[in-house]
Amino acid sequence: MSEIIAAYLVHDRKGNLEKKAEGIALGLTVGSWTDLPLLEQEQLKKHKGRVVHVQELEPCVRVNSYFGTAITRGIIQIGYPSLNFSNDLPAILTTVFGKLSLDGEIKLLDLEFSSELKSLFPGPKFGVEGIRELTGVTDRPYVMSIFKGVIGRDLTFLGNQLREQALGGVDFIKDDEILFENPLTPFEKRIAVGKKVLEEVYEDTGHRAFYAVNLTGRTSDLKEKAKRAVELGADILLFNVFAYGLDVMQGLAEDENIQIPIMAHPAVSGASTPSEFYGISNELLLGKLVRYAGADFSLFPSPYGSVALPKKEALGIRESLTKVEEGMKAALPVPSAGIHPGLVPQLYHDFGKDSVINAGGGIHGHALGAIGGGAAFRQAVDGVLVGKNLSEQAETNPELKLAIEQWGSLEVAK
Amino acid sequence: MSEIIAAYLVHDRKGNLEKKAEGIALGLTVGSWTDLPLLEQEQLKKHKGRVVHVQELEPCVRVNSYFGTAITRGIIQIGYPSLNFSNDLPAILTTVFGKLSLDGEIKLLDLEFSSELKSLFPGPKFGVEGIRELTGVTDRPYVMSIFKGVIGRDLTFLGNQLREQALGGVDFIKDDEILFENPLTPFEKRIAVGKKVLEEVYEDTGHRAFYAVNLTGRTSDLKEKAKRAVELGADILLFNVFAYGLDVMQGLAEDENIQIPIMAHPAVSGASTPSEFYGISNELLLGKLVRYAGADFSLFPSPYGSVALPKKEALGIRESLTKVEEGMKAALPVPSAGIHPGLVPQLYHDFGKDSVINAGGGIHGHALGAIGGGAAFRQAVDGVLVGKNLSEQAETNPELKLAIEQWGSLEVAK
Repeated sequence: MSEIIAAYLVHDRKGNLEKKAEGIALGLTVGSWTDLPLLEQEQLKKHKGRVVHVQELEPCVRVNSYFGTAITRGIIQIGYPSLNFSNDLPAILTTVFGKLSLDGEIKLLDLEFSSELKSLFPGPKFGVEGIRELTGVTDRPYVMSIFKGVIGRDLTFLGNQLREQALGGVDFIKDDEILFENPLTPFEKRIAVGKKVLEEVYEDTGHRAFYAVNLTGRTSDLKEKAKRAVELGADILLFNVFAYGLDVMQGLAEDENIQIPIMAHPAVSGASTPSEFYGISNELLLGKLVRYAGADFSLFPSPYGSVALPKKEALGIRESLTKVEEGMKAALPVPSAGIHPGLVPQLYHDFGKDSVINAGGGIHGHALGAIGGGAAFRQAVDGVLVGKNLSEQAETNPELKLAIEQWGSLEVAK
Repeated sequence: MSEIIAAYLVHDRKGNLEKKAEGIALGLTVGSWTDLPLLEQEQLKKHKGRVVHVQELEPCVRVNSYFGTAITRGIIQIGYPSLNFSNDLPAILTTVFGKLSLDGEIKLLDLEFSSELKSLFPGPKFGVEGIRELTGVTDRPYVMSIFKGVIGRDLTFLGNQLREQALGGVDFIKDDEILFENPLTPFEKRIAVGKKVLEEVYEDTGHRAFYAVNLTGRTSDLKEKAKRAVELGADILLFNVFAYGLDVMQGLAEDENIQIPIMAHPAVSGASTPSEFYGISNELLLGKLVRYAGADFSLFPSPYGSVALPKKEALGIRESLTKVEEGMKAALPVPSAGIHPGLVPQLYHDFGKDSVINAGGGIHGHALGAIGGGAAFRQAVDGVLVGKNLSEQAETNPELKLAIEQWGSLEVAK
């Protein structure tokens, strides 16, 4: 029978995890059981949630001290029959973490979809393979850069900044996620100017970068706006999925008239992910769910910067985005924030070839500007691929040398 | 100049809140300032965020011990020019708590909209006054009950349970939020059966209860589904707004063809609200934003049950939903969970006349069933309104008497 299995981390004051699990399995499905007549039990059997597993964890002194009482920690897994919900993420989230999200210290760690249920979700339209094909870059991690300081600036400013970034050799350039529809740099004009600039750079250098334009505005207008973007030749849509809703992105991903990749930005996701007691795990939210709902790229805080994720979580997101799943393309992990060229060997080690190295300050802040910053990243990537240390590679690559002088470097033991 | 002022609770390891605030005000608007040429400063001035207020709070031993280091606690208020974002909640949330939500221990407490900005949000279509008019009940808190154990049941079961609830005299009856589109009790049939049953009860008793049907499914289908519900004579739409997105609900609220009230359910909101360090305050999310986005009712955990909010937060939600705001109707607060008739004086004291007393177990679990449960609540309400103690009122009201014997009562000092 098709079901979804939810895993929760619980911090319980009552100490009886088995009872708690049984309460969840019943309370969020058929409501009650033992007091039902046998005939009704027979009818409702296929709707009844089941306790899949209960595992008590070691108590934690720090946690007990925080709550001022003894807390039983544990992992609870509950199976919810697919019969109980419609095949959409709002119904699934409401079933597995609707009322339950309000019920004390409980964090949703993972959702395991049955193959049948999973087959109803689109996953990435392009995925890693599709983007490899689209870009013609197959043998290395991508490099991405971010517009900087564009609020209040005009199209000329944007066009120039875009050109500098593209000339540095980055593969993708993304809008600032806080750049919305505005009279100075309207959406459609940004796409037109972006296309023109990137094609000029291509003619001059043979390198074609791709521009991710921020799809914003009212939910009800997004599809039309996205279709218009495609008509205008937009490369990629950047989308603040957590400010809208996962199902909104899924609607965009499923639309056959929106044949360009979607890049999911983690804005607002930090409202739900960082607590050890509450919310939704990063691996599930920024990894599995973003992938199932159709993102081709998923940005998340890298484990290296000042806005950082615990490394285990960042690697968990990568794993959720890329692990082989039947009928579901892999999405590109984009660890972001705190990235400079000296971190490339570490990034390659941690996130592999099929990932995007994404930088803002590490591009624009380079002594030679964004052109130098992009070049330094590409040189670092080239060095890593042929097994050179950064310091060796820097000997013959002046932009990388400057970057390492500026930000340092982290060699990775081989 | 129009702006939105965000208030944050921060737990900072570096101890310089002024610097942190300045970093936010610049980082989330123009990016940098002091290193800009004067001419550019002049151009960007109207886009620059401003630090409105910084207040350091007393350190907290429990918090320091949890993080294992000295933490500086404080409230930071930042003003963001409206010029920087489009007039929609996804843009506002991304601006004020996009990247910032991922940046350490920071919780979004409040958003203060300028009048100009606020006027662009619909607020409740009906609001308290509209619902008073619609129902003809003007002089007392409403009583609501919830379907129970309806997963896997058919229309006959639902119809009967609806009848029992209506006969008890409750004003509103809401679907279980985990009841989705399904072959046994499809949406359109539920509306038809609900209407028939409630009109029969009205003919028999003169009491017309209103049924809130759960609007579910894919985001892109919701408007059509809601319009169809209106055509079929649905009374109210229940909506799991946090499983979708606030802007999705706003789209429903603004649609002129959806002329019935919207009841916002808090499912999934607990992923973002309970932590003291992260997320969004209940007062903002379940109060102000739900109201601005157009909910006529907002459900939230009461402060009395086992799934409970801190009382200050529950009262804060009530205040956010109902306080007089120019051009914005008030929404009905619906404190839920753990409610039985013996709590009515306390509920009336805490939430006032313009609120909804909402119960599940406290209705269905009554010794005389849902009819008795509803009657007991209505008797308790009548007693409170004429200034009687529960025990006095119970003397002549057997259903209330039974309820008090079963669940106890809480008199409120006068």
